[in-house]
Amino acid sequence: MSLNNPGFSFNHMMLRVRDQERALNFYRDILGMEITRQREYESGRFTNTFLAFPGEATAIELTYNWDREEPYSKGENFGHLALMVDNVKEACTYLESQGVKIKTPPKVMSHGTRMLAFVYDFEENLVELVEPLKDNE
Amino acid sequence: MSLNNPGFSFNHMMLRVRDQERALNFYRDILGMEITRQREYESGRFTNTFLAFPGEATAIELTYNWDREEPYSKGENFGHLALMVDNVKEACTYLESQGVKIKTPPKVMSHGTRMLAFVYDFEENLVELVEPLKDNE
Repeated sequence: MSLNNPGFSFNHMMLRVRDQERALNFYRDILGMEITRQREYESGRFTNTFLAFPGEATAIELTYNWDREEPYSKGENFGHLALMVDNVKEACTYLESQGVKIKTPPKVMSHGTRMLAFVYDFEENLVELVEPLKDNE
Repeated sequence: MSLNNPGFSFNHMMLRVRDQERALNFYRDILGMEITRQREYESGRFTNTFLAFPGEATAIELTYNWDREEPYSKGENFGHLALMVDNVKEACTYLESQGVKIKTPPKVMSHGTRMLAFVYDFEENLVELVEPLKDNE
């Protein structure tokens, strides 16, 4: 029995989505993630889709339960997922042109100095946009 | 105005934690993540801590609101975060030895073939353990 740390890596985070096509439109078509794995589980009546940005190891898993009709509830524990971009303003302009809803337009972080914005994916999950850190942040 | 995809990367996911020390005990001490950035925001009365596994780009951000007393509610949209390990059984043995609560002991995935387990972090968030995929999965 080993009591040593076996060595973990961050494989993915999972979100449940009510509308798989809309979710894929957001994460794949608009953001540019690639589907790395997709399986339909006929007996469980759900589909799992893993997407990752090209060259990245950590994925987002979208679980689509075929018979779910009502939106999934949101809790306080999960805050957001965050994407890095070179320029938050340009990224917001792009996302708006794709029909993405902006929650917080580009601004300097409250209590901080970093430029950020918040948008919603098509299931109303919060997606933060951040720029690379500068030396003094 | 550019309407081209500006190029995103998966920077982090954020969880709110009620007990920062317990959360750091789990993510840093037990899992082996490293703190890549930590800032206290005195005026906002919160602390943000970013942790990543060595060599990995995608982090977990823990937000600790100093004055929060009650546990953060859980929703249905966020399912879990998942960690890859070579051997799920060994990993569970290790985690149990560290006081981590096991929700689902190592088993073959329902409707699938992959070995997995679920444990709880110290805020009752679900953490899935998965093994590297085999060719037929």
